[in-house]
Amino acid sequence: MKIGMIGLGRMGFRMSLRLIRGGHTVVGHDPNPEAVERLVQKGGQGADSLEALVSQLALPRVIWMMIPAGDPVDQTLDRLVPLLTGGDMVIDGGNSFYKDSMRRAERLKERGLFYLDVGTSGGVWGLEEGYSLMIGGEAEAVAHLRPIFETLAPAPDRGWGHVGPSGSGHFVKMIHNGIEYGMMQALAEGFSVMHHKEAFQLDLHQIAEIWRYGSVVRSWLLDLLAEGLAEGTQLEDIAPYVEDSGEGRWTVKEAIDLNVAAPVMTLSLIQRIRSRDEEGYAERILALLRNQFGGHAIREVTENDE
Amino acid sequence: MKIGMIGLGRMGFRMSLRLIRGGHTVVGHDPNPEAVERLVQKGGQGADSLEALVSQLALPRVIWMMIPAGDPVDQTLDRLVPLLTGGDMVIDGGNSFYKDSMRRAERLKERGLFYLDVGTSGGVWGLEEGYSLMIGGEAEAVAHLRPIFETLAPAPDRGWGHVGPSGSGHFVKMIHNGIEYGMMQALAEGFSVMHHKEAFQLDLHQIAEIWRYGSVVRSWLLDLLAEGLAEGTQLEDIAPYVEDSGEGRWTVKEAIDLNVAAPVMTLSLIQRIRSRDEEGYAERILALLRNQFGGHAIREVTENDE
Repeated sequence: MKIGMIGLGRMGFRMSLRLIRGGHTVVGHDPNPEAVERLVQKGGQGADSLEALVSQLALPRVIWMMIPAGDPVDQTLDRLVPLLTGGDMVIDGGNSFYKDSMRRAERLKERGLFYLDVGTSGGVWGLEEGYSLMIGGEAEAVAHLRPIFETLAPAPDRGWGHVGPSGSGHFVKMIHNGIEYGMMQALAEGFSVMHHKEAFQLDLHQIAEIWRYGSVVRSWLLDLLAEGLAEGTQLEDIAPYVEDSGEGRWTVKEAIDLNVAAPVMTLSLIQRIRSRDEEGYAERILALLRNQFGGHAIREVTENDE
Repeated sequence: MKIGMIGLGRMGFRMSLRLIRGGHTVVGHDPNPEAVERLVQKGGQGADSLEALVSQLALPRVIWMMIPAGDPVDQTLDRLVPLLTGGDMVIDGGNSFYKDSMRRAERLKERGLFYLDVGTSGGVWGLEEGYSLMIGGEAEAVAHLRPIFETLAPAPDRGWGHVGPSGSGHFVKMIHNGIEYGMMQALAEGFSVMHHKEAFQLDLHQIAEIWRYGSVVRSWLLDLLAEGLAEGTQLEDIAPYVEDSGEGRWTVKEAIDLNVAAPVMTLSLIQRIRSRDEEGYAERILALLRNQFGGHAIREVTENDE
């Protein structure tokens, strides 16, 4: 199958390679000409503009966007949609907010275009291991694109599926990431408790390796953790600072909107937010109050606190 | 190797079978004669008392206890220790509190006996897939028992290890279970949010299956969840009531003792505690207070609340 790929970054480039290896033809476009050149060297076709990309595809065109969520998607669609013809198919494989995807699908439908939201998990390992794909949108388009999904997934018959109408693919991916936050936080806390149990001098890399086989917590995240801890377990060179992308926040807001208690997913997000709070204003307030009512000492501010 | 197994319940029976399959000789004892008979039918040897068990073992004796944590372990040791000879080895493969194991190891050491605490994970699946074994105690005893560990583990060279001194095996297993609580809670919350997103009519079994391949949350717990959801996703016949055994509580207390923040492991325990609180006294207080200061209505008590 011939497919246009917009966005040849960390994810889009690797997905293109997996498609090429699977016998598909990929026409790639990226604002960065070097990314396009890299794809051409790997057997892809290059397009230096959206117009060039569209002109190289046969009807119905199949175009996969792998670009940052938010405005970039709308801006790309603003430029892309006028170039397309009824029946063409646009896929957003990024981490868009599912309500944005519902709105965009509606907009493209008015123009006779198909729009699929495909939650894509697998990270940088997807090139070799395949991607988990959660697809929202119309069944007709999903059926047409089956060869693409079968190639991107870990195997033709597993790791991908049409989960529901427009928006549902990104919704399911959002929840996936919320769960991921919670699983990561549980692992992080457990290893932190073991790290602090100095009396036992535990080898955390050894323990991660033991747990990889036969234990209840065996998981891909544990595999990655074991691999990371093989380099050293003190982690002196890793700042205790954790970013979050949108999905965790959206999951928490969605749970509240649906009146579903999701305390662990919520706290996992909050721990990341707290990790970035170098001021610690809330803790200053707590120290102030303890001093006010109990005369408890306030620790002096040191260089580390400034 | 010849080994005595005390306790032929869900875990001890299956571990005995795995040892027999691996070419070891198992002498089994259990207060329930039927359990002993079942083992004999599977190729084990039976012992109708601790004395009979001890008399069937050669020096140094190797005796594995797979019995409930707490008093049963001390009571068994009270009866067993006088029957043993210097150099004999006793293994506690159950979920004992690690400080109890440290105390017991000290006590047996005074008698010239070895005592290993072996955290054992794998549940009812361990018979086929092998057990993850975290071993605390003296290296000399661990070396002697290597053939046993190699058979119980998923493979001779993986899934087991000597993690440190007495107590450390059960300590690591305790943390393992704390992490397990957190991972389970994250999965539970995510699937609950999806269940409540009625607009998308998501098939939660399908989604679990998709995630099993290529996704970041792929894990053994997800495999089990997918299998369970295959029977139906509404779960009408499963009461929303969750027990906890000791390890989760001990993990939370240990984290506090070590001044380590472990909010997600803590909340995962609290959610289980809350699931069993049919009275909801705290929520009655909240409703009372909202009524007191804001005149907000108190919902009438219905049959479900009584």
